[in-house]
Amino acid sequence: MIIFADSFLWIIMKLKYAIVGTGALGGFYGGKLAHSGQDVHFLFHSDYEFVKVNGLKIDSFNGSFLVKPVNAYQQANQMPACDVVLVCLKTNNNQLLREILPPLLHKDTVIVLVQNGLGIEQELSTHFPNNSIAGGLAFICSSKIGTGHIAHYDFGSIKFGSYQGENTEKLEQVCNDLKQAGIKAEFSQNLNEARWQKLVWNIPYNGLTVVLNTTTDRMMKQPDSRQLIWEIMMEVVEASKYCSTDVGENFAHKMMYMTDKMTPYAPSMKVDFDAKRPMEIQAIYTNPIQTALKAGYNMKKVSMLEQQLHFIQSLY
Amino acid sequence: MIIFADSFLWIIMKLKYAIVGTGALGGFYGGKLAHSGQDVHFLFHSDYEFVKVNGLKIDSFNGSFLVKPVNAYQQANQMPACDVVLVCLKTNNNQLLREILPPLLHKDTVIVLVQNGLGIEQELSTHFPNNSIAGGLAFICSSKIGTGHIAHYDFGSIKFGSYQGENTEKLEQVCNDLKQAGIKAEFSQNLNEARWQKLVWNIPYNGLTVVLNTTTDRMMKQPDSRQLIWEIMMEVVEASKYCSTDVGENFAHKMMYMTDKMTPYAPSMKVDFDAKRPMEIQAIYTNPIQTALKAGYNMKKVSMLEQQLHFIQSLY
Repeated sequence: MIIFADSFLWIIMKLKYAIVGTGALGGFYGGKLAHSGQDVHFLFHSDYEFVKVNGLKIDSFNGSFLVKPVNAYQQANQMPACDVVLVCLKTNNNQLLREILPPLLHKDTVIVLVQNGLGIEQELSTHFPNNSIAGGLAFICSSKIGTGHIAHYDFGSIKFGSYQGENTEKLEQVCNDLKQAGIKAEFSQNLNEARWQKLVWNIPYNGLTVVLNTTTDRMMKQPDSRQLIWEIMMEVVEASKYCSTDVGENFAHKMMYMTDKMTPYAPSMKVDFDAKRPMEIQAIYTNPIQTALKAGYNMKKVSMLEQQLHFIQSLY
Repeated sequence: MIIFADSFLWIIMKLKYAIVGTGALGGFYGGKLAHSGQDVHFLFHSDYEFVKVNGLKIDSFNGSFLVKPVNAYQQANQMPACDVVLVCLKTNNNQLLREILPPLLHKDTVIVLVQNGLGIEQELSTHFPNNSIAGGLAFICSSKIGTGHIAHYDFGSIKFGSYQGENTEKLEQVCNDLKQAGIKAEFSQNLNEARWQKLVWNIPYNGLTVVLNTTTDRMMKQPDSRQLIWEIMMEVVEASKYCSTDVGENFAHKMMYMTDKMTPYAPSMKVDFDAKRPMEIQAIYTNPIQTALKAGYNMKKVSMLEQQLHFIQSLY
């Protein structure tokens, strides 16, 4: 084997992936990578025993498949150190990462937060200052519908960006691996912009489907809720300008168009609400609101949505 | 009998009252007037037969009573012309007034809209340009809880104001009659101010109890919803300044204090929502929003609440 300088090794070496949180996102993207022949190691919680025996089932509108056998683990400290860790937990569980991540890391591991919201890489970097951190934004409609069973309803693209600019080649390699697995994956030079773009969709649809106890399609069809969605998107677009980027009104138009075409959908926050699980209010609402406020812009309707969500969650 | 000049007649003559809409408000105030010996004529809809036989029952925290017999009517054209018509319908039914009112009116009748919201006297005056119109703002917690059966839980004061400044003596006489019946009644020189004052309470509590599917006390106890109530009140206070009055921040503090002391309560809009009846969105939200907007102020959170209510009502 020819020995290359360290920095070139990733080009020819297969990446070792860890999936932390094998749900709607981790199950799907990890499953696709594994199904395409990548070396993927999945951390499971309650589904471990089932998946060990039955495998991980992905029902996708693009073609269903079963990953079997699965490199499944119940404890992070039984897992190998990996080159790329895709963190697909809900942000509310990120405090668990301080225990979960250390066994999975070597000095060049990239930790990718495939999560919604803002400010999460910053938070993680305070606990893992020597690791390379990145973010992943998934534009996908998927759900975990049973033990070891993921449903993929629509879309599926994912966009990656580096938190502090390191390891961009490795992230591009991740994109290539995903593309080979049939996923539309993209590397962005601007993680902050990618996160604000995703917020343009997440902020109106996640919160309003909970507060109005409904689905995306119903809100898009009724003129008042449609107008409210648009006004909330405009607040997020405006806030992005105060926060070192500008996602632009055109992007909001695209999100409206995409949601019109989308299968009727309950976003992840609505699924959490229905299951009486904690909602990701901090990452999706509080952090963007406070970031924009510090920069000089008050997202008034977004704040009202946050307040309504806090009230609703207080009644659980 | 000594004959006085017309304008003095009201001082010594007993007023003849008509109650249009014998529900939570009409049943209570009309019932109190009748119980105290006033000449009150009630228009009933479905409760007519029952009340004719069983009377009108008021369960009040201040003392319960039965009005029996009741001057009950099923058709407005069977009723006598009256000096004062207390309109206690929901504003959504105000189009019915064009048919109901004419038989009840003589040339000096005062039509009093004991209703919430803004712009309703103006609307009525286009159809009854030759009649004296007034407004009544009830600060009361009451409900119709059964056929011919009203429950009065808390408070009970009422404030009257003339729409165009006429007939103030007759309205003061109405106040006196109500006071004699044990009601805290007040005449205001400024109906516009009184309506905006009432909106400071109505706008946050009516809409939010529907959208959050809850009661006043729960929202007051949870910090985020409490803060949201306050912010919405501040929008209404600010709007009032653009609309020829200023209800003032102190009034909002009073409303917060009063609601803290209040029996847990579902406002009328929540009662309508639970019964899947149309909500008074136009009078309580749309009219104030548009009035303020024309005057140069955008009540953003109030508008969001209106949009949410429209969506919720569209699902009925």
